[in-house]
Amino acid sequence: MVYVTRKGHFSASHRLFNPDWTDEKNDRMFGKCNNPRGHGHNYEVEVTVAGDPAPETGMVIDLKELAEIMEREILEQVDHKHLNYDVDFLKNVVPTAENIAIAFWNILESRLPGGKLHSIRLFESDNNFVEYRGGKES
Amino acid sequence: MVYVTRKGHFSASHRLFNPDWTDEKNDRMFGKCNNPRGHGHNYEVEVTVAGDPAPETGMVIDLKELAEIMEREILEQVDHKHLNYDVDFLKNVVPTAENIAIAFWNILESRLPGGKLHSIRLFESDNNFVEYRGGKES
Amino acid sequence: MVYVTRKGHFSASHRLFNPDWTDEKNDRMFGKCNNPRGHGHNYEVEVTVAGDPAPETGMVIDLKELAEIMEREILEQVDHKHLNYDVDFLKNVVPTAENIAIAFWNILESRLPGGKLHSIRLFESDNNFVEYRGGKES
Amino acid sequence: MVYVTRKGHFSASHRLFNPDWTDEKNDRMFGKCNNPRGHGHNYEVEVTVAGDPAPETGMVIDLKELAEIMEREILEQVDHKHLNYDVDFLKNVVPTAENIAIAFWNILESRLPGGKLHSIRLFESDNNFVEYRGGKES
Amino acid sequence: MVYVTRKGHFSASHRLFNPDWTDEKNDRMFGKCNNPRGHGHNYEVEVTVAGDPAPETGMVIDLKELAEIMEREILEQVDHKHLNYDVDFLKNVVPTAENIAIAFWNILESRLPGGKLHSIRLFESDNNFVEYRGGKES
Amino acid sequence: MVYVTRKGHFSASHRLFNPDWTDEKNDRMFGKCNNPRGHGHNYEVEVTVAGDPAPETGMVIDLKELAEIMEREILEQVDHKHLNYDVDFLKNVVPTAENIAIAFWNILESRLPGGKLHSIRLFESDNNFVEYRGGKES
Repeated sequence: MVYVTRKGHFSASHRLFNPDWTDEKNDRMFGKCNNPRGHGHNYEVEVTVAGDPAPETGMVIDLKELAEIMEREILEQVDHKHLNYDVDFLKNVVPTAENIAIAFWNILESRLPGGKLHSIRLFESDNNFVEYRGGKES
Repeated sequence: MVYVTRKGHFSASHRLFNPDWTDEKNDRMFGKCNNPRGHGHNYEVEVTVAGDPAPETGMVIDLKELAEIMEREILEQVDHKHLNYDVDFLKNVVPTAENIAIAFWNILESRLPGGKLHSIRLFESDNNFVEYRGGKES
Repeated sequence: MVYVTRKGHFSASHRLFNPDWTDEKNDRMFGKCNNPRGHGHNYEVEVTVAGDPAPETGMVIDLKELAEIMEREILEQVDHKHLNYDVDFLKNVVPTAENIAIAFWNILESRLPGGKLHSIRLFESDNNFVEYRGGKES
Repeated sequence: MVYVTRKGHFSASHRLFNPDWTDEKNDRMFGKCNNPRGHGHNYEVEVTVAGDPAPETGMVIDLKELAEIMEREILEQVDHKHLNYDVDFLKNVVPTAENIAIAFWNILESRLPGGKLHSIRLFESDNNFVEYRGGKES
Repeated sequence: MVYVTRKGHFSASHRLFNPDWTDEKNDRMFGKCNNPRGHGHNYEVEVTVAGDPAPETGMVIDLKELAEIMEREILEQVDHKHLNYDVDFLKNVVPTAENIAIAFWNILESRLPGGKLHSIRLFESDNNFVEYRGGKES
Repeated sequence: MVYVTRKGHFSASHRLFNPDWTDEKNDRMFGKCNNPRGHGHNYEVEVTVAGDPAPETGMVIDLKELAEIMEREILEQVDHKHLNYDVDFLKNVVPTAENIAIAFWNILESRLPGGKLHSIRLFESDNNFVEYRGGKES
């Protein structure tokens, strides 16, 4: 078993906000992350795939193919977008790093040409990041 | 002459958009940066001050004081904000990195307790940054 | 299960030194890290918390609250300090990265408002870091 | 159990190429990584060792000793080399990051003076890295 | 005057070698950088353009256009190549970072759609980089 | 003219403290940087040399030689030291980043085998750095 990771980047806006709550409660719970017009980040996402390297190629997965899948299935959907409004697969969740990572997992899990999706790590800033392994423990 | 630099961070949304233009022209000129709901970045700003170190302190400027001025005068104004709507000193310009850097210069130039403002560098992402020296050449 | 990480920073001095040993033995075992007046580092600490995101907030833990706990309970205790002399919870151990990480774990484990402490990673420099998971295996 | 990591660096050339295949197939499978004269990277390798800190030293392993072993056993063998031609332990494999990491594991596993080899992480670029744990799952 | 920088990346092999010298002299002068089969790096290049932001766009230069020019004129020519053999514009020079930066300057100087080329910075590794300003002093 | 930079690292303790002042004044002026036992940093130093590349080597200066000079003349003098007590050339100054950079300049200026010393940049942390050019303006 070897774990292969490909990193991608996107720049997006979001607003932490629960539409079922009053403005006061949203403000109290989410603080400055609840700014009505939103704020934004340069996100980094690390997609890790597990598998055995094929003897003829030495590769678990073709990184070029993985990069294209990441680009088409997730990065193009979120780059230069407002995550609360512009992204179908985030429509019904608060767009925290946790929920974005889970959404990315759900999209990529069934779309890999080789190997097995092992984890999604999402960096919201230099100081904050999350990891999701499809519910498995680390 | 020694050049002392302090780095700060903020996360904000913006939209590249000229209100005097048609939607078509904005789209053609600014591409995906013109997404109506905006997108965002983790910005880094480097403020550089020039001066001679005082013999008794060995310092050009008290970095703690510089950090407080940067925090109060610029970072708190833009952090977790939408730069097109929420920031008075960016109201009449397209909020490109160039214009943000110039606006930061204009604010800080007269507010330093020691030394002389030398340059503002603003990183919009790992791959893009600008520098402004008050119109002086580098 | 989602793993949420918050990074913090502190600058401190330390000296690798076992008071039960002779100077010669300390010097042989710890080399230049045994310099009597100490040396120092810009440390980075990553605190990882595991849990399920709450449906209404999308968050495993409130990062602002986690940051405040880290600041108060560990970072303020060690920042701009000499780890051998100035820090109560490091008094009886050699202040290696291993022992600092274990001490941080012991402090934070019972103080988290949500989620469960998963790991402490401590970077002593760009080239050296340690991870501790409360004795659990990785 | 504490996990201690030491990072090392090397700069090397490689060519992804399977000598059993035709030029056409190599080109189709490996794309630009199959450039006949090769291309290169600044690689980073993280060697992680697991163990309990010794009470008298606070250390799982002497990092100076680990650094010397890494230098002698792996880094000097690959630094400023062409990985397809100049390195005995990579002679019979396609020098992908996966295979280099496995080769490093096989060399280091039996040569550690303390602790137990836990993982090898190899970064080929800022965007691509692999991890190997001797076949164990992460 | 604002200075706008765009960063690009490429991975390439090179060998420091002067064909007019004996093997012994090449070895003495270039050391391990003279390995006959070459070695490689992940290079980073920063292209800086100087100009006044246009009032209607807030931009010195369209970064998307600059990125395309960099991609087409320099990065595609050198990425995944051996710099001594595969690159026409490096044919007659020793491919040191100094000479690569000068070659990039000579190519880009006349091809910018706006602004004026100010500097080329080329990072060969985390620890080594060069800057060229067309012969002007910094 | 090409500018060539080599980066080095050292880990050291220091205390900001003026022996001519009372404890109260030192505390008021230097705050937590005045902790009596000191604190420390992982410093990074960038030494930049200016010159024309020699046609036969393509190099302004032999980087290996520059690295050795930096190692011997400055890095070995300060690495794993307490800058207030253990370093002769810092004996009579407050060891701020400004004064360390000036001291490094004074040492290296006359010791370079080729090229001309252009600047010293010293990073005390990710957020603070200084640059000195021998009194020349940037």
